[in-house]
Amino acid sequence: MVLVEPERVRLFTDFRYAERAREVPGVEVEVTKRHIYTDLADRLPGPVGFEAPAVSYADHAILHHAGAELTPRYGLVESLRAVKEPGELDAIRRAAEITDRAYERMAEERYAGRTEKELVWRMTEILHEEGADEPAFEIDIAAGPTAASPHAMPGDRVIEEGDLVLIDAGAKLDHYNSDCTRTFAVGEVSESLREIYEVTRKAQQAGLDAVRAGTTGQAADAAARAVIDDAGYGENFGHGLGHGLGLLVHEAPVLRPESTDTLEPGNVVTVEPGIYLSGVAGVRIEDLVVVTDDGCEVLSSFTKDLVTVR
Amino acid sequence: MVLVEPERVRLFTDFRYAERAREVPGVEVEVTKRHIYTDLADRLPGPVGFEAPAVSYADHAILHHAGAELTPRYGLVESLRAVKEPGELDAIRRAAEITDRAYERMAEERYAGRTEKELVWRMTEILHEEGADEPAFEIDIAAGPTAASPHAMPGDRVIEEGDLVLIDAGAKLDHYNSDCTRTFAVGEVSESLREIYEVTRKAQQAGLDAVRAGTTGQAADAAARAVIDDAGYGENFGHGLGHGLGLLVHEAPVLRPESTDTLEPGNVVTVEPGIYLSGVAGVRIEDLVVVTDDGCEVLSSFTKDLVTVR
Repeated sequence: MVLVEPERVRLFTDFRYAERAREVPGVEVEVTKRHIYTDLADRLPGPVGFEAPAVSYADHAILHHAGAELTPRYGLVESLRAVKEPGELDAIRRAAEITDRAYERMAEERYAGRTEKELVWRMTEILHEEGADEPAFEIDIAAGPTAASPHAMPGDRVIEEGDLVLIDAGAKLDHYNSDCTRTFAVGEVSESLREIYEVTRKAQQAGLDAVRAGTTGQAADAAARAVIDDAGYGENFGHGLGHGLGLLVHEAPVLRPESTDTLEPGNVVTVEPGIYLSGVAGVRIEDLVVVTDDGCEVLSSFTKDLVTVR
Repeated sequence: MVLVEPERVRLFTDFRYAERAREVPGVEVEVTKRHIYTDLADRLPGPVGFEAPAVSYADHAILHHAGAELTPRYGLVESLRAVKEPGELDAIRRAAEITDRAYERMAEERYAGRTEKELVWRMTEILHEEGADEPAFEIDIAAGPTAASPHAMPGDRVIEEGDLVLIDAGAKLDHYNSDCTRTFAVGEVSESLREIYEVTRKAQQAGLDAVRAGTTGQAADAAARAVIDDAGYGENFGHGLGHGLGLLVHEAPVLRPESTDTLEPGNVVTVEPGIYLSGVAGVRIEDLVVVTDDGCEVLSSFTKDLVTVR
């Protein structure tokens, strides 16, 4: 827990992290009991704001009953991270480059006859070989109907000719993340699958075209969503267009119908529409971009043509 | 979110997980908006208990202001998981066997001249090859002074002859976890490091001897801690003796000075004392055990003699 006061910054942590905490510049480290909240109330100097989404009801109750004067705050820390500094952009850019190289190599792999799980491990190896500290998040590889669930668990399903295979992965590098999704065709795929791919691709381009400083997260989402709606697949795109990314894979700003965010230069966001046909297939195409004054810089360079793999 | 009523069980989730949710037997699936709490208040049938440590202050506030009648509860779900069923024990046992084989193979690796990070990747590969679905948690490999921080981050430090190397790792298999720690000697290590190893080992044995149904988590912790205290390292063992494990790597019951738990047959817990000398070295020895009526069954079979590696 970090407590910021005008004249001092204290970092509270228990024994396990005390050594590492002392490496943080500009903070006083105070070592607490294992359950930090039971030890914190006595050390709070008066009225204190806290990040309401990051504190559990139970932990708040401990501080409250110990007499702490608490005021809930929302997004105070996250908003400080929404516009990236040059060093942060550099780390994200390098993480995105690793991810691009991994997709280039994944396009050369054999898919038919292998399971989703086997390919997840292959992607894990490749990300490591290309220099990632680790995958940015649990790699998602979903074939055929499995991909109709946008957060499916890769399983033992054997991939077949004619399947679409969705790959959502990223690299973590120097604590920063990247995020990219591509959908591959295993051999010849049906005309209807090609159609949802092309609709998704057009929607993704419409999303990219809409992203610029001053645009709202709602408007960017709406631009991509209109393409999918017009093609008759509106009910098959159940998630938002994208999310901010940095130290966390999901952070401010968000691009979706309920978003209240307005984009600023230096925001890093994903643009990732999808079409999911229950029991059949799923398509998603995702780029990582930096918001600029007059548009966006796309960090993901791997092709968005429908790539046919073996 | 799961809502359990006498006559029905509802599983609320958003679009992204709806397909997978429908695979869960015995529940009615209700699809919500992306932010589940804003959609939940209208669907609650009256007074509702909720897991206070699992709900943020912010999410509670949303339900509260929408008029929900909420009562905080603590550990209701976790307590249902504390005594493992035979099928659960079987999965944990198989995960522990994978981990044992991984330690056997790690004992054959070269350490001197390699970095902690390189060895983390090697352990990742070995766990995969031995059949783990994935590592149960971020593998911790800490050499020399790095190990003095029980939750250090593996880094680019090159391991040297004379270092102690602490490895904390586990396998996840069929959603269940294992957890094991061993400390290796790289070539010849100093007499003082051998001494803290032997004290830790005796403390670990005292912990194992104390674990049985009816013993409190506090008493088991105290049995191991007394050995370390008596040897003069009391201040160098800053964490608890162990924790329950199952679907999560940390769950009930806990073994530590402030524990209020009493062990029951079928609990699965770790027994993992450590001695950490700031700036010098750290030792931890951890077994995974099943609590029985008259003692415990140790699931970790890799030797606890001080193993010398290259």
